[in-house]
Amino acid sequence: MRYAERRERLRATATERELDAVLVTNLLNVRYLTGFTGSNGALLLRTDGTDVFGTDGRYTTQAGTQVPDIELLVDRATVTALAREAVGRGAGRIGYESHHLTVDGLRALESVLADAAAGGTVAELTSVQRAVEALRVVKDDDEVDALRRACAVADAALAELAAEGALRPGRTELQVGRELDARMLAMGAEAPSFETIVATGANSAVPHHRPDSTELRAGDFLKLDFGATVDGYHSDMTRTLVLGEAADWQREVYELVAAAQAAGRAALGVGADVVAVDAAARDVIAAAGHGGHFPHGLGHGVGLEIHEAPGIGQLGAGTLAAGMAVTVEPGVYLPGHGGVRIEDTLIVTDDEPELLTLTSKELLVL
Amino acid sequence: MRYAERRERLRATATERELDAVLVTNLLNVRYLTGFTGSNGALLLRTDGTDVFGTDGRYTTQAGTQVPDIELLVDRATVTALAREAVGRGAGRIGYESHHLTVDGLRALESVLADAAAGGTVAELTSVQRAVEALRVVKDDDEVDALRRACAVADAALAELAAEGALRPGRTELQVGRELDARMLAMGAEAPSFETIVATGANSAVPHHRPDSTELRAGDFLKLDFGATVDGYHSDMTRTLVLGEAADWQREVYELVAAAQAAGRAALGVGADVVAVDAAARDVIAAAGHGGHFPHGLGHGVGLEIHEAPGIGQLGAGTLAAGMAVTVEPGVYLPGHGGVRIEDTLIVTDDEPELLTLTSKELLVL
Repeated sequence: MRYAERRERLRATATERELDAVLVTNLLNVRYLTGFTGSNGALLLRTDGTDVFGTDGRYTTQAGTQVPDIELLVDRATVTALAREAVGRGAGRIGYESHHLTVDGLRALESVLADAAAGGTVAELTSVQRAVEALRVVKDDDEVDALRRACAVADAALAELAAEGALRPGRTELQVGRELDARMLAMGAEAPSFETIVATGANSAVPHHRPDSTELRAGDFLKLDFGATVDGYHSDMTRTLVLGEAADWQREVYELVAAAQAAGRAALGVGADVVAVDAAARDVIAAAGHGGHFPHGLGHGVGLEIHEAPGIGQLGAGTLAAGMAVTVEPGVYLPGHGGVRIEDTLIVTDDEPELLTLTSKELLVL
Repeated sequence: MRYAERRERLRATATERELDAVLVTNLLNVRYLTGFTGSNGALLLRTDGTDVFGTDGRYTTQAGTQVPDIELLVDRATVTALAREAVGRGAGRIGYESHHLTVDGLRALESVLADAAAGGTVAELTSVQRAVEALRVVKDDDEVDALRRACAVADAALAELAAEGALRPGRTELQVGRELDARMLAMGAEAPSFETIVATGANSAVPHHRPDSTELRAGDFLKLDFGATVDGYHSDMTRTLVLGEAADWQREVYELVAAAQAAGRAALGVGADVVAVDAAARDVIAAAGHGGHFPHGLGHGVGLEIHEAPGIGQLGAGTLAAGMAVTVEPGVYLPGHGGVRIEDTLIVTDDEPELLTLTSKELLVL
């Protein structure tokens, strides 16, 4: 696995910033750098290469299996114990994650440093900002592989649900959502990526509708936004179907969103500005007079979190790089009538983006 | 629902501490006080009774439905916008949750206050510590009802799995875990309470074993630790079975743990010291010479979190009160051989504790 490689990249950042050590407390960042999946763990990464992984007694065995290559420190007060270790080994400048550590957590670290100072050892704390998240934006091969498998589970779960006739009039949004979740779990997902969205009829016009007891009806849109988590990585996909015969207005809205989504996908490339990628899809919708019916950004990064950098939207900033994993998900929502969203997860490459969500985007009429 | 009642209890705390307002940012605390279930929301509770609920544009509709009784503020930078609102309305002393707010979050609030000070309005920030968590320890009727339903789902899922013969030699821990999860979802759980533990044979001696491809075998222990989340509330239950014939040593360990568990349940009462409750069960195990094989606390509170106050263990502090929801879960783990844990979720009452997990605790031999 690539954990050691990832730690070397963070070590380079730390060295560049003249830090002696970095205390990584964001559990997802700890997982990214070590492979540890328990609920309490932290990493003391030192620029001299002697790292320490901390956890509590519940995870001694698990840490031995998952993090065999890093010195282990077992302590209930994991983070302060690692800080004491850092200071004891002579770290003068210690980086910490100010976007994750709580105010109480910082006070506890400051108290460790105050004790050390009383003993004549001076150390200081400085925020590393989102240094690990900055590394996580570009996925390595292991991560792309996990995302590919997560997307495959979601594709297969939807295919099975459709094939078995579970998407039919009379069933409720909640029933459909639960069956989709159950199928993803049966197919090897650890969990759904987020609370599955099932929205039918007028509910489909609500971008983030929570499934309720509304029944599916013939002639209505059925919007499914869902994903599977595999090895910690999240897939994200939206498909909108019609139950029975599609009306002209439904085909029209669907084709418009599909065209916008294709334009968004085509705009994904190395060096592309995220605002321009958003615009590529948004312009298609605006040109058809529906600019006001697309109230959210075009997409977002996915990985160990369902929403992570880069944000692809009008308020975004930055450009795309090879290896970024992103969604492209334009929508048109007509309040009181219905809405369509089409969403894929893709990997940016030097060539065409790699499509990970393979379910057809033809208007599916069930 | 009881959200307004809960807010009045927090308002009383705030008034007592001479605060003008409390900025609640821990999303679970926000849910507890308002009913909001989205992924971004915060509450500005003011001692004069004019509260403001903040969220971003994705949740405008949902906030209207779930939080109809509180003034709504929609802003991407939700927490700083609420702080600006507090200062603008003349709050001089503003409480915040230092155990939850990040260092960067506090810096942002401090910057709002600095801007206000530059304009001549002076306000200060002070931690309220875990004021809302302190209220959450005692459950009201709505919460007990949700916990009861969550426990019923877990009971029913296990009963169905056993009745259908899914717990048989040759199946893997992972398969059993996934089926248990899928059944809980199908029965109305929003999610499993935590990553379901399925541990068989020697794995059952690992207190928090992660299910893997180990196959169930005749004559082995099978330990299942799992729960369902319903309306945000978590059930927690462990049962240990034997597949096929139980050996004498298995019956012996099982009866010991069952006796310790009964002693722990019997010790649950209003005013009972949590250390004494732990000791009631631990003493039974120690008297049999297995003190060293019970390396964790006896139990913990459950509610909107799977682990919350009160902790019932040797390092705990405090006494029990009517309405607390707790687990009682002693275990004896014999490394390399196998282990037994038996766990219930119960409500402390003025009378006998109410048992919410109703699955039999007789040694089930399948």
